[in-house]
Amino acid sequence: MSIALSDTSTTAAHRYVMTFVCEDRPGIVHAITGAIVAVDGNIAESRQFESGDSHRFYMRVEIVTAASLEEVRTALAEVIDRFGLEATIDRVGRPLRTLILTSTATHCVNDLLYQASTGNLAIEVPLVLGNHETPARFAEFHGVPFEHRPVTSAEEKAAFEDRVREAIVEHDVELVVLARYMQILSPELCADLAGRCINIHHSFLPGFKGANPYRQAYARGVKQIGATAHFVTTDLDEGPIIEQEVIRVDHTRSPRELMALGQDTEVRTLRQAVGLFAQSRVLLDGSRTIVFR
Amino acid sequence: MSIALSDTSTTAAHRYVMTFVCEDRPGIVHAITGAIVAVDGNIAESRQFESGDSHRFYMRVEIVTAASLEEVRTALAEVIDRFGLEATIDRVGRPLRTLILTSTATHCVNDLLYQASTGNLAIEVPLVLGNHETPARFAEFHGVPFEHRPVTSAEEKAAFEDRVREAIVEHDVELVVLARYMQILSPELCADLAGRCINIHHSFLPGFKGANPYRQAYARGVKQIGATAHFVTTDLDEGPIIEQEVIRVDHTRSPRELMALGQDTEVRTLRQAVGLFAQSRVLLDGSRTIVFR
Amino acid sequence: MSIALSDTSTTAAHRYVMTFVCEDRPGIVHAITGAIVAVDGNIAESRQFESGDSHRFYMRVEIVTAASLEEVRTALAEVIDRFGLEATIDRVGRPLRTLILTSTATHCVNDLLYQASTGNLAIEVPLVLGNHETPARFAEFHGVPFEHRPVTSAEEKAAFEDRVREAIVEHDVELVVLARYMQILSPELCADLAGRCINIHHSFLPGFKGANPYRQAYARGVKQIGATAHFVTTDLDEGPIIEQEVIRVDHTRSPRELMALGQDTEVRTLRQAVGLFAQSRVLLDGSRTIVFR
Amino acid sequence: MSIALSDTSTTAAHRYVMTFVCEDRPGIVHAITGAIVAVDGNIAESRQFESGDSHRFYMRVEIVTAASLEEVRTALAEVIDRFGLEATIDRVGRPLRTLILTSTATHCVNDLLYQASTGNLAIEVPLVLGNHETPARFAEFHGVPFEHRPVTSAEEKAAFEDRVREAIVEHDVELVVLARYMQILSPELCADLAGRCINIHHSFLPGFKGANPYRQAYARGVKQIGATAHFVTTDLDEGPIIEQEVIRVDHTRSPRELMALGQDTEVRTLRQAVGLFAQSRVLLDGSRTIVFR
Repeated sequence: MSIALSDTSTTAAHRYVMTFVCEDRPGIVHAITGAIVAVDGNIAESRQFESGDSHRFYMRVEIVTAASLEEVRTALAEVIDRFGLEATIDRVGRPLRTLILTSTATHCVNDLLYQASTGNLAIEVPLVLGNHETPARFAEFHGVPFEHRPVTSAEEKAAFEDRVREAIVEHDVELVVLARYMQILSPELCADLAGRCINIHHSFLPGFKGANPYRQAYARGVKQIGATAHFVTTDLDEGPIIEQEVIRVDHTRSPRELMALGQDTEVRTLRQAVGLFAQSRVLLDGSRTIVFR
Repeated sequence: MSIALSDTSTTAAHRYVMTFVCEDRPGIVHAITGAIVAVDGNIAESRQFESGDSHRFYMRVEIVTAASLEEVRTALAEVIDRFGLEATIDRVGRPLRTLILTSTATHCVNDLLYQASTGNLAIEVPLVLGNHETPARFAEFHGVPFEHRPVTSAEEKAAFEDRVREAIVEHDVELVVLARYMQILSPELCADLAGRCINIHHSFLPGFKGANPYRQAYARGVKQIGATAHFVTTDLDEGPIIEQEVIRVDHTRSPRELMALGQDTEVRTLRQAVGLFAQSRVLLDGSRTIVFR
Repeated sequence: MSIALSDTSTTAAHRYVMTFVCEDRPGIVHAITGAIVAVDGNIAESRQFESGDSHRFYMRVEIVTAASLEEVRTALAEVIDRFGLEATIDRVGRPLRTLILTSTATHCVNDLLYQASTGNLAIEVPLVLGNHETPARFAEFHGVPFEHRPVTSAEEKAAFEDRVREAIVEHDVELVVLARYMQILSPELCADLAGRCINIHHSFLPGFKGANPYRQAYARGVKQIGATAHFVTTDLDEGPIIEQEVIRVDHTRSPRELMALGQDTEVRTLRQAVGLFAQSRVLLDGSRTIVFR
Repeated sequence: MSIALSDTSTTAAHRYVMTFVCEDRPGIVHAITGAIVAVDGNIAESRQFESGDSHRFYMRVEIVTAASLEEVRTALAEVIDRFGLEATIDRVGRPLRTLILTSTATHCVNDLLYQASTGNLAIEVPLVLGNHETPARFAEFHGVPFEHRPVTSAEEKAAFEDRVREAIVEHDVELVVLARYMQILSPELCADLAGRCINIHHSFLPGFKGANPYRQAYARGVKQIGATAHFVTTDLDEGPIIEQEVIRVDHTRSPRELMALGQDTEVRTLRQAVGLFAQSRVLLDGSRTIVFR
């Protein structure tokens, strides 16, 4: 009986995903894979890249093993320590705890919640926080708590951000998504959320930064409009880009129609960026991102 | 016998393309189609658009008729006069006399000459004028005269532009294409060529204007790079956009690789813009273009 | 004063969209535009095409006029009669009464209802009819009646189709959309709905007809997967194509992941096709479609 | 002196690319990276994948090291032997010796030769072999030998294929490209060239196999047309797909125009597939390909 149980436990395959970042030097992969061998792990998929800019080493590995998450972490601890690796080790597919901030537009928040509900997007959303009430019913439909906190003064803005910080702690939040949240975060909050906060900008950056990008795109007469998902930094619309999409438009489209057409591009770009992040496929390399698709 | 011959001649179908631009008001299309009916013309394809910006009327029509070009022009003269139409009337498929200016890069000029030679691009090129000699052998291969005139001083630049003006007259040039010509045209020449000179810029405008756009794109970490074909104006890289294309790139690409990848996008974007223009599908609406694909 | 009022009333602009189809012959456009002039109509946008296959004439016009819909119809009646035109004349933007049929998958029906609710898609949905209950809560959320009728036998299938016919009459339905409805319609219903029923097939037709297209795509190792929106005919997955989209995939994707990725392409393709149809931009030319974008 | 030379040789960094394929089992990566460590190699980029279909292991690695190619091969020999790896080890960027077969169309062969001449495509072409003479002048322009051998009978076809085999030996050919070569290869030659012969088919496979795909696409009324680069097998147009591209078309395009439009898609798809292959990024997994972009 106990043998049978033990066998079952041994053969039960777990799938883990790991990322490693450090100053590049020879032997890192050999050391990491040595630790993987030590837990009888089989590498199912791996990507590695040395940045020509920063001479830093970036790696993402998925392994299959009978070992527990704790055993894998223990096996890798010495290597992580020796090479000074920034490392993450997690179960493949574990939903990322994600806080969503919104304003009046509902298309992005609606899609994120819908995709999460179907299992196509590996996030779980403990809270949607909005400075307008419009998205409330979408959150409710998906069984997600919604809080409305207006931001019409400096005091209210500070209170909103306090609530963000509080919610992050309360729900152990791993990612903050600005799903068309139309307020600029304070420099302090930007700094605190560095590399953990994704915004969707409704233009193909660096074109049309700031307000009313569809009106700007119309005025300039561009033939494709786009959307850009990027990490939030203190420089508005200048954070590291994670994903960009475009669609073809023509002279017949009014600014209002560009806005309607662009919504779908925003939805897909943000969903894609959040999904890649949730799968540990997005790593920061200074002002650029490494995206292991 | 003579009757039979005459019949044949009458039924021989010609295909003409016309464009009309004017201040919008009711009755224009009815008047134009009345003139078309008068020459027993059948409309094969037509597009029309009223610009919300300028309240101007834009129309492109292809007709099939046994009438001669002269007869069609005569039939339309009264309408053109009455409505104050800017009008063009031409045979469908007549190659546009196109002057190409180049520098060292050969990919765009090579493609334009190749496409013209296969008949896929309705242009004929009486002359390629370069401030470097590299493209000479491609021109020679396609049987097109090439002139090399260095531009290393203000005097040489003025002489180059004088030659451009002269060649335009000499060869009855209808379109000037800057096929990666890396000199800035003088304001006077820009003004004289307004709406008749197409440039290819190697970025997705308005992003990355000016020099080294691929290096800029690399530094910014964009996930798609593009090219933009636009009419030349005195504002550098600010002219009305005719066509834009993008391709997906990722973090593994160096600036040099972006440049190599981008060449194909430049080639296609410029070819597309020139082809649309040669088919009378591109009309100017202030700082924007109407493109009837 | 009364003159001023009268003026105001005269200048109150209505926007109408018309389509005309007939055997091609000279003078049609002139006659149509004559009738438009007669109601002081101004053409805002028009497209016309003569099919080389069928020698039929296809036209779509948007006009702006102070005349009522009835006045416009009266003005055109003589032309329609004289040329034997198949004609539609409607207000621009009037939502099309659309019956949606569904099965278990919710992504398409959810998107259609969401887009209709935001006004981005010009349809109104009086009823969603499903052979499974899954989509019920999405319909309810959007305030749209949902009926569940299982189809597990020939009798139930006949009853389902009877209900479709009944609902069409009851709600004056203009378009039936199969939003991943996984039953094959009877030849009789296909015939009755000819040109009024749009299906979304989850492959890039004509590749991968029939069941399990994502599994077929995986097995064949294609590098892009797609979706096709088409009119329903008695030949399964052979009806006239309205719209197609593709996305890039690679060897790392399992059939299950292809299915998840493909959902977004299905959603966009179907939404696009329905939107084009609702704007009177889709006309039938035998086994092909004319789509005036 | 000799010491100085030796030092130079030691510090001169070489970049090598390796691919490994075998039955999957734990420890392979660790063993390979151990050998890389042994030559002081640094991994610049790596990709790895375990096929769910075949349970085979696929890996591509680029390393930087001062060691010679011979030293690297020696270091890996034991691992290759122990795991029964199919392995390739080569200098990054070494041009692949490529034999091109053509018929009358020149767009693909012209592009391949042009791209090779600019260094954007890492191939060198010792010979172009055509059953028609049209491409001769393009080969001549690029300084590449061209042989014309008509294929109008079974005897001539056999002679043509004999010349292919001979040329492969004579020029140590590593890749054969069918650049719109419109003859079907014999089953024997297909078998002998398995995994070493790339064809471009002018449709989005599996749609429109066989002859006249653009005419088929027109008849079916598809809204996008494509091209497919694939390995040649004895099943016509059924070989493992390497790359696919599509472009949007509409009802206004005649079969002839589709053909002209499609040429550019063919060119890009073939160039992309050949470039990926030349960089050791394409590996066979049964009837599918692993493409490590």
